[in-house]
Amino acid sequence: MPQLRLALAQVDPTVGALEGNSDLVVRWARHAAERGAHLVAFPEMVLTGYPVEDLALRRSFVEASRSALEALATRLAAEGLGELAVVVGYLGRDDDAAHAEALGRPKGSPQNCVALLHGGTVVARQAKHHLPNYGVFDEFRHFVQGDRMAIVRVRGVDVALAICEDLWQEGGPVAATRSAGAGLLVVVNGSPYERNKDDVRLDLCRRRATQAGCTLAYVNMVGGQDELVFDGDSLVVSASGDVLGRAPQFAEGCLVVDLDLPAPVPGPAPLRVEADPHPYEVERVVVSAEPVPPYAAEPAGIASRILDEAEVYAALVTGVRDYVAKNGFRTVVLGLSGGIDSALCAAVACDAIGAANVHAVSMPSSYSSEHSRSDAADLAERTGLAFRVVPIAPMVAAFLDQVPLTGLAEENLQARVRGVVLMGLSNQEGHLVLATGNKSEVAVGYSTIYGDAVGGFAPLKDVPKTWVWRLARWRNGVAAERGERPPIPASSIDKPPSAELRPGQLDSDSLPDYAVLDELLDAYVEQDRGSAELVAAGFDRELVERVLRMVDAAEYKRRQYPPGPKVSERNFGRDRRLPITNGWREPVGASRTE
Amino acid sequence: MPQLRLALAQVDPTVGALEGNSDLVVRWARHAAERGAHLVAFPEMVLTGYPVEDLALRRSFVEASRSALEALATRLAAEGLGELAVVVGYLGRDDDAAHAEALGRPKGSPQNCVALLHGGTVVARQAKHHLPNYGVFDEFRHFVQGDRMAIVRVRGVDVALAICEDLWQEGGPVAATRSAGAGLLVVVNGSPYERNKDDVRLDLCRRRATQAGCTLAYVNMVGGQDELVFDGDSLVVSASGDVLGRAPQFAEGCLVVDLDLPAPVPGPAPLRVEADPHPYEVERVVVSAEPVPPYAAEPAGIASRILDEAEVYAALVTGVRDYVAKNGFRTVVLGLSGGIDSALCAAVACDAIGAANVHAVSMPSSYSSEHSRSDAADLAERTGLAFRVVPIAPMVAAFLDQVPLTGLAEENLQARVRGVVLMGLSNQEGHLVLATGNKSEVAVGYSTIYGDAVGGFAPLKDVPKTWVWRLARWRNGVAAERGERPPIPASSIDKPPSAELRPGQLDSDSLPDYAVLDELLDAYVEQDRGSAELVAAGFDRELVERVLRMVDAAEYKRRQYPPGPKVSERNFGRDRRLPITNGWREPVGASRTE
Repeated sequence: MPQLRLALAQVDPTVGALEGNSDLVVRWARHAAERGAHLVAFPEMVLTGYPVEDLALRRSFVEASRSALEALATRLAAEGLGELAVVVGYLGRDDDAAHAEALGRPKGSPQNCVALLHGGTVVARQAKHHLPNYGVFDEFRHFVQGDRMAIVRVRGVDVALAICEDLWQEGGPVAATRSAGAGLLVVVNGSPYERNKDDVRLDLCRRRATQAGCTLAYVNMVGGQDELVFDGDSLVVSASGDVLGRAPQFAEGCLVVDLDLPAPVPGPAPLRVEADPHPYEVERVVVSAEPVPPYAAEPAGIASRILDEAEVYAALVTGVRDYVAKNGFRTVVLGLSGGIDSALCAAVACDAIGAANVHAVSMPSSYSSEHSRSDAADLAERTGLAFRVVPIAPMVAAFLDQVPLTGLAEENLQARVRGVVLMGLSNQEGHLVLATGNKSEVAVGYSTIYGDAVGGFAPLKDVPKTWVWRLARWRNGVAAERGERPPIPASSIDKPPSAELRPGQLDSDSLPDYAVLDELLDAYVEQDRGSAELVAAGFDRELVERVLRMVDAAEYKRRQYPPGPKVSERNFGRDRRLPITNGWREPVGASRTE
Repeated sequence: MPQLRLALAQVDPTVGALEGNSDLVVRWARHAAERGAHLVAFPEMVLTGYPVEDLALRRSFVEASRSALEALATRLAAEGLGELAVVVGYLGRDDDAAHAEALGRPKGSPQNCVALLHGGTVVARQAKHHLPNYGVFDEFRHFVQGDRMAIVRVRGVDVALAICEDLWQEGGPVAATRSAGAGLLVVVNGSPYERNKDDVRLDLCRRRATQAGCTLAYVNMVGGQDELVFDGDSLVVSASGDVLGRAPQFAEGCLVVDLDLPAPVPGPAPLRVEADPHPYEVERVVVSAEPVPPYAAEPAGIASRILDEAEVYAALVTGVRDYVAKNGFRTVVLGLSGGIDSALCAAVACDAIGAANVHAVSMPSSYSSEHSRSDAADLAERTGLAFRVVPIAPMVAAFLDQVPLTGLAEENLQARVRGVVLMGLSNQEGHLVLATGNKSEVAVGYSTIYGDAVGGFAPLKDVPKTWVWRLARWRNGVAAERGERPPIPASSIDKPPSAELRPGQLDSDSLPDYAVLDELLDAYVEQDRGSAELVAAGFDRELVERVLRMVDAAEYKRRQYPPGPKVSERNFGRDRRLPITNGWREPVGASRTE
């Protein structure tokens, strides 16, 4: 059996940065070569970053991506890496007029492609077959599907290629890989993190490896791109489903695995193979027919999975770190209320970009409790972030002098004055503003638009309140284990939540207990259950009615809320897209039909 | 030749309001019956409103739509309208497990459907064949395509059905209509307004009528839904392309046209017909085989097209009126600076909901010119809107006392103080806030986030600055023609634009001449041209580089900008969807490759 040393480079590209991403590929290709790899694979569309959204529709960008691919092949060879087979994703185009037209698209339409580079040239190209157009994905909008397979013989092994969603479907490339008798299936991915997805992913890879009848290598990107966070978790499984190697989550790096792979069956290789739902044309390319001389294989690492809390926290840190850096910021500013949301936000920010780059402002009003001030100061002291106090009473008074506001209008005024202060500091000092709201608040609209909702990025936007506490406790526990001082004051975790916008105000005045609320929100927002189902599942009828109304009525606020990292199955924004103008009210109770 | 009196009801449904939309259908069906119609057609998905976005994915809503359809059929008969054939769009589901599975979707997946109701029952159903997934449309995300035709014999005429995008494709339902030998093709539409679309639409209808080989009836909705405005423009063309009737734009109403239509060819009608790209199964239903006894036909109205300026202005008025009403508001509030943007906004708002419901606030700062105050007051006096003055100097001073801000940070502070005042009045008095920015500003980011960008709706979001002037002059001209006082002070139109955030500031300090800017923005934003093309087209290289950077860098502001009515080929929001984190910079000049 031929041997092959395979490297999976789970790297962190930046959308649009063709030059920087090319550098990244060269750097990690060199690393792979230095570790003796024969084949290195990079993630889906690594050259352009992913997802590029409507950049895919701009012809100048498509052409720049195609040129960058050619230039990359040349450069790899020029830098002495021509012998390494390099698999990279890029943005290509469909030049087969008949194919494009059959799909109702013009010749030259963009495609989500993968290429194999070797010896200074692009030796094979293949376009994604299955285009996801659900959840956070809009690939029917952007791409034309491919319907041909490229199989490249590398060191005497037939290597088949597939792209992300191609793996999630049984038909198509997976089936064609088996029919074509390939010895290795390399799948390049841009698969966003969400809770519990790693388990699903491993099971899927095992099943597909068995169906493809060969070893399967899965390489995924890491890093943040607007609302999405990629968690890496690259892995290799054998045809019988054994895990041969697995990379850690959320860390840029290179997984190297020594493989024993079947030699191609002797005789002419088929150029057209059966596959469900239709046959595929196969382009066969031979890069090197001679197997590698026998060598001593090294054991590959199999990283163990981390706790759910560690995963989510790492996703938040990654999301913040990359949003800040990739958008040209170095520092952030946020309001510190003494409450748990801003405390967790600050801890995440400190872990993402270093406490010295995190600027926090305590903005007490006349309704602020003593503990809200002291807890904020305590957190600042524990973490070492830059801290200042700006009392808002004089500004609030100046407004009330000119415009008489009462009740909710006065409560919101306080939040908005704080927003103006944060934006002022952002403009004056160049910080990115972090909004500190959590998913439960964003869901029911328990936030002030242009007030606490102010920000360029919202780290906790997809984190329910009960998980905010869970993550805070977990983070403090990690610190304790490491012998460090826990960053979050215990009092911020333990006190009853309050917006402190009027005397003695508590969240529980207007909202149900968060444990109940989060369960209900999960069922309505993430599972899309209707009210009849919710009531049948045991939720209180009146509560269902009240909470659903709140969620529906807050859609306009969510449209103007900053982006934040997706960590759940369905986030607000890319995943859940509802109209603002919406007369639909889930019927609750027999007497209401609309 | 059988005669048929056809009514096209171009009505204004509300997304999600199944009960209200059912009432609307009954009301206009009765109107059609009273005018002697034999067949009345309503727009695409009239029962649910359109587009429903991810509501389509909620099972409870799909079931509610299907029940509402059955209830509507029963109710029409109960109210004495059972003899009228009623064509309505609704949200249905694909119960053909084999069909859904072949498309990789579960049984019961949602479909964009049309039904014909008669005699108290749903006599035929058909799902949309061509699902648009470009521009503002996401129908691959929401629906499963249909692949069968329903042909219903009504008063001795075979009536074929199609849904919106089905008309824009030559293959599919149009081709099947011809093969099936139908005498009338009824197309139900939810076709959003954009400039010049009416001309395209008429040409298309003519071409498709010829291709279908029969008279074609096109019914479109009117009204606003978030960013979209539907302009009606329902029409009927003969097989030879003659316009037999055409409804006015932007007005709810019913177009009635008397038609002479071919009787079906004698003999058995085919149940499977050839059509490009594949044959269609045809469900044939006979509602009434007997033609109508001969009657004296009446001439149909052919509304003439209105001016471009009138069209765009009507779209803005419609968008504002419906956003306000459908979201439960009765009044709006906006800042009045004395400049042209807020003046035009105020005029649109007055025309949309009446001057008595429009609250305007002049918020002079220490940098405000005398004319900015007097022009604002002048407009208030001309239109009769509710007007007040709130000087912002004390609030600005209170902030500067606590937080030293200079330069751009101080400029933005003034805009944000104004935003807080408007939001305070909104919360206190219950008004919807209108943001007054135009498309040119939104494009280059010449606005203050959480400042002048504050608002629930932004009437001019898709209107370039040069068009703001054009519309203002046109609106004043209309007033003059009618012998009314022009609403907009001439001085607001004629003075050089300025944000007045520092002494003597003019837009022209930081922006090129708006005529040049708008031309460049049109080429970059609407036509998606790359920088090389722009320079080749004659734009100054340095200007291209500067403006493209501004546009790219303002993406984060646009994500948090309120929705506004789409009137151009490509609006910000639904049409143009770019990443915030985006390292791509259009190459300008030979020395820059990224």
